[in-house]
Amino acid sequence: MLIAYDGTEFRGWAKQPGVRTVQGSIEEALERMVGSPLKLSVAGRTDAGVHASGQVASFPAPLAIDPIRVQRALNAGLAPEVVVRDARLVPDGFDARRRATAREYAYRIDTGPVPDPFMARFVWHRPGQLSVTSMRRGARLLVGEHDFSSFCRSPKLPASTVRDLRRLSVSAKGQYVEIRALANSFLQQMVRSLVGTLVAVGDGKRDPETMAVVLAARSRAAAGQIAPPYGLTLVRVTYGKH
Amino acid sequence: MLIAYDGTEFRGWAKQPGVRTVQGSIEEALERMVGSPLKLSVAGRTDAGVHASGQVASFPAPLAIDPIRVQRALNAGLAPEVVVRDARLVPDGFDARRRATAREYAYRIDTGPVPDPFMARFVWHRPGQLSVTSMRRGARLLVGEHDFSSFCRSPKLPASTVRDLRRLSVSAKGQYVEIRALANSFLQQMVRSLVGTLVAVGDGKRDPETMAVVLAARSRAAAGQIAPPYGLTLVRVTYGKH
Repeated sequence: MLIAYDGTEFRGWAKQPGVRTVQGSIEEALERMVGSPLKLSVAGRTDAGVHASGQVASFPAPLAIDPIRVQRALNAGLAPEVVVRDARLVPDGFDARRRATAREYAYRIDTGPVPDPFMARFVWHRPGQLSVTSMRRGARLLVGEHDFSSFCRSPKLPASTVRDLRRLSVSAKGQYVEIRALANSFLQQMVRSLVGTLVAVGDGKRDPETMAVVLAARSRAAAGQIAPPYGLTLVRVTYGKH
Repeated sequence: MLIAYDGTEFRGWAKQPGVRTVQGSIEEALERMVGSPLKLSVAGRTDAGVHASGQVASFPAPLAIDPIRVQRALNAGLAPEVVVRDARLVPDGFDARRRATAREYAYRIDTGPVPDPFMARFVWHRPGQLSVTSMRRGARLLVGEHDFSSFCRSPKLPASTVRDLRRLSVSAKGQYVEIRALANSFLQQMVRSLVGTLVAVGDGKRDPETMAVVLAARSRAAAGQIAPPYGLTLVRVTYGKH
């Protein structure tokens, strides 16, 4: 299933007892439809308040199920906050998380003097100009296969903190600045931490050349603040040819 | 004051006892600031659920007041749902409603198969293609100075139902159709009634040539359904040179 959601009113993707999550909402609706519990595998476990336009989730279907009916039933119950954009049958053994080869996130910043009510749920309103040139210079030093532990939420370090950051671009359009990050996978809060650090660079508070030092430090304290969740959207998940 | 708002959670602009309205929220915040009650004059009294990106409201300031401080105080309390985009002092006797020479509204329709969570608050999701060519043909017959009582909410007809509809354009971009309406002023629910009727034309349910008949009928029953409020945004108010 290709899924989009406004994450504002959810405590993130991952199911947790007693709170409203995207996974929990979809699994409940699926269970009502097929009559037995199902567990979703997902490409990007987004945090509370983070959005998705191109999330991918899969589940082992217990019977010959019509993907169009699944899409309609879920949208009837969950849209427009959560929308199944597409649904299709995949070969046995496909798993949305394990088979994903890359994830792409977009982070949007509004640098204008006052917020825009139409964009407020999906951007970080942070008034004041940012130097896109400096941010790009800093971003270039972060691209590549590195140990990103400086950009990972500290308490829960996974076995490996090496990730292949294939692209980290910064673009500006009017008062909006967009940062796009593409990697094989991301550590927890990694994109928001990259964004917070690049914003400090764009602000002139950090020198773009220090990005190499931040990486080498392998310590959360070396990076900048973590940007707020609502500016972040998972836009695309890539799978191999097979 | 130039004002933008997401009208989703408001019962419209106009103050009413016991319900949350845009006027009520702004007047309360102003009263807290200046210490005495103030009454806003507004260019467009938007209905419940209708948005604005370029609303204009004025009030007689009881003392030498700094417009920048007014803007900051209101935004501190109301943004990002309601945002004062600009505030300035105007000559005595200026009145945002009486001095307005034109109002422009935009109505957005999403014709795609599934809604978009990022746009859902601000568009009418109405799946299925619309003939923009037919809609434009119908729109051309509605432009001009006419008695628009067929497009006015019946119970409350004002003294005159003649309005000068200067522009009624239909444009398409991908799955989105946008209708723009510009007039000296509008009758109640007039834009939504024009939109509902044009959608019936775009759907093939009405012939574009019948628009002249609808106008001539001077009866609400002659027009099409009223489009839902959430697709509608007041985008601009025009004032004369003085």
